[in-house]
Amino acid sequence: MRAAIVAIGSELLSTDRLDTNSLRITERLERHGVELVAKSVVGDDEAAIARELARRLAEAELLIVSGGLGPTADDVTREATAAALGRRLIDDPEVWRAIERRFASFGRVPSPNNRRQALVIEGARVLANPRGSAPGLRIEDGPRTLFLFPGVPHELDGMLAADLEPWLAARSGGSALDYAWFKTALRAESEVDGQLEPAYAEFGRERITILAGIGEVKVRIAAAGPEAERRARLETMGARVRALLGAGVYGEGAETTLEQVVGERLIERGWTIAVAESCTGGLLAERLTRQPGSSRYFAGGAVVYANQAKSGILGVPAALVEEHGAVSEPVARAMAEGCRLAFGTDLAVAITGIAGPDGGSPEKPRGTVHEALAGPEGTEHRRFRFPGDRERVRAYAAQAALEIVRRRLLGIGGAIWTEEPAR
Amino acid sequence: MRAAIVAIGSELLSTDRLDTNSLRITERLERHGVELVAKSVVGDDEAAIARELARRLAEAELLIVSGGLGPTADDVTREATAAALGRRLIDDPEVWRAIERRFASFGRVPSPNNRRQALVIEGARVLANPRGSAPGLRIEDGPRTLFLFPGVPHELDGMLAADLEPWLAARSGGSALDYAWFKTALRAESEVDGQLEPAYAEFGRERITILAGIGEVKVRIAAAGPEAERRARLETMGARVRALLGAGVYGEGAETTLEQVVGERLIERGWTIAVAESCTGGLLAERLTRQPGSSRYFAGGAVVYANQAKSGILGVPAALVEEHGAVSEPVARAMAEGCRLAFGTDLAVAITGIAGPDGGSPEKPRGTVHEALAGPEGTEHRRFRFPGDRERVRAYAAQAALEIVRRRLLGIGGAIWTEEPAR
Repeated sequence: MRAAIVAIGSELLSTDRLDTNSLRITERLERHGVELVAKSVVGDDEAAIARELARRLAEAELLIVSGGLGPTADDVTREATAAALGRRLIDDPEVWRAIERRFASFGRVPSPNNRRQALVIEGARVLANPRGSAPGLRIEDGPRTLFLFPGVPHELDGMLAADLEPWLAARSGGSALDYAWFKTALRAESEVDGQLEPAYAEFGRERITILAGIGEVKVRIAAAGPEAERRARLETMGARVRALLGAGVYGEGAETTLEQVVGERLIERGWTIAVAESCTGGLLAERLTRQPGSSRYFAGGAVVYANQAKSGILGVPAALVEEHGAVSEPVARAMAEGCRLAFGTDLAVAITGIAGPDGGSPEKPRGTVHEALAGPEGTEHRRFRFPGDRERVRAYAAQAALEIVRRRLLGIGGAIWTEEPAR
Repeated sequence: MRAAIVAIGSELLSTDRLDTNSLRITERLERHGVELVAKSVVGDDEAAIARELARRLAEAELLIVSGGLGPTADDVTREATAAALGRRLIDDPEVWRAIERRFASFGRVPSPNNRRQALVIEGARVLANPRGSAPGLRIEDGPRTLFLFPGVPHELDGMLAADLEPWLAARSGGSALDYAWFKTALRAESEVDGQLEPAYAEFGRERITILAGIGEVKVRIAAAGPEAERRARLETMGARVRALLGAGVYGEGAETTLEQVVGERLIERGWTIAVAESCTGGLLAERLTRQPGSSRYFAGGAVVYANQAKSGILGVPAALVEEHGAVSEPVARAMAEGCRLAFGTDLAVAITGIAGPDGGSPEKPRGTVHEALAGPEGTEHRRFRFPGDRERVRAYAAQAALEIVRRRLLGIGGAIWTEEPAR
């Protein structure tokens, strides 16, 4: 079964409001294996709504409409739907009595406007809305079904649980979609895509989605069908993706973060870490401490923006900065080693670079970042050239530092994307 | 002129992603008096995209499409648009050379997949995308215009400014909306709303929008009409709002940030600053250094998560932590004063608190945060109780620290919202 969602309301076409109802509707649909093919937002315009509904009914068997069922003149979803289906609107005395009763329970009487909420599309089933005055409607139209729900999130939620969910459950017969996620850091999207080619061929391209962020590429796989079958299929697909991407996968699961995985590996190893940051200005420490419980392994960090702070807090010799510049391999190494001493940790990672917009030069253009990791077995160094503006360079640099730590903890070697060859 | 927005991407039909690009596109449209009639999201399905575009072209003269221009096989916006318009796709060697140059500037070569990004729709104008590899396209089709933009927000933003805005400006003929923004930190939304009542009465409620974030309330005012008239109106409205909100307004302009304003005040004063952070874990330093040129006033920061680091790096007496606990007024004061000494700055601000989820107690529940500011005239302290989860408490705490610094720099006294009375 395919579904479409239409949200009605001119306010949802403004600069500061989004249709978030669709996320909760989508969750119900996914749970029952219903494929969402499109979602759209239309203003309070009867002709436009009618046109939109008619179109969506041509491409989906299930149409879920939210909003425009209120009592005011700009609530025209009932009229538009009747027009789209070529049906009449009928004043339903029973619905009107329910509205009167609801108002009476608050010691009030409905206004004449509310009378419009008692209009029911011919042949529709009225869906009670105990949280508000606008009832919902379910309409069967040949092989197609429309649900009209109120747009108020709280009222909608109640009706999704009471009306949509049981209707979907009765039809899905245990057939649903399951997902799995695989996350990689500091990999090129096109490279991950290339590695997945055999999986596309084997499982179908529409089942595998690649999502790229800054220094992060996420792969989502989806399996459909009856429960046992789709679980088995997800296992098979997952094993294939895991094998194709190898140690590049830092974690699985939609919510897994690189800082979380690094934290878990540190706890496993019983190690502590500290960080020394220049151009990232605290971003790396901030990411590590986003993780609840990070105090078990994170001792602290030094943001050494001024060169004086590099010497004063981390003991980086002023002569080293003088000779090689603050953005250099020797200074990155000295920062990491000084940080390890100052915080008394097992590991310390240091970042020094040029995030821009100023400070670049022909030999050290913007995006040049040196990172070093000091540990019990010595200090390693990598030099990067990250693309983008200040914000992106900082984000890449923090992500790369976490990936360097992850690789050290797992003993994974090799070059990292955007890393420059050693000179 | 009427417009429609279509966002392409199967991930935008999932339960955890929304098309937020449309908000920024809408802002540009509104500014030039273009009416948005619908927006929709379609998955990576060539036939469905082609159908959607053809329909929207029947109801709008301007169609803005984002997403699906990447190098991977599921990026099919180019093909779908060509199909919807009945035009051919042509491999453009000049576009390909630009992609090669971009990759070369990072010392890399494009993958064979990237070749698809050099496909151009017959008759289209290629729009350079300096922030990414996917160029945009502008296509005239009789009285209609289509823009194809990349979906990556950062790349889209650049192209909205460089391509959409000038195109709209050339057509709007001075009939447009102008906006002004007024930003406040650590104020309650309802309080700001109350203060604005007289302005609602005077200028109309629909012209004044309040947008609330974490520890930040933004007021947007809008004026319409011919240029001279709307400019004058915006001046009048702005003066009124400024007077009503007083020193609570930290800055004006949509993009102005609290860290930027603090930086400007520090530069004016010729002062430097350092930060000492516990529960915010580097977030305050990260925010201060987001600002380009922050090295002029920001010396550095110490993230002292472990108590040992509080003593070792900042010289906070271990006995003080022992006696009062790490989250206490004496420790916050000692952190600020120790930080000021360690970095040799004019000001130092310290944050220590309980972000959760663990670590709370009946006397010091989650959200309890002590902040102190040390300066040439002594040290001040405030105690907060912030609402929400770990992420929100951290965001509030960093925002409050910046607001404390701003108030000190401007000599503004008084209590801050969410601040607990001194005991």
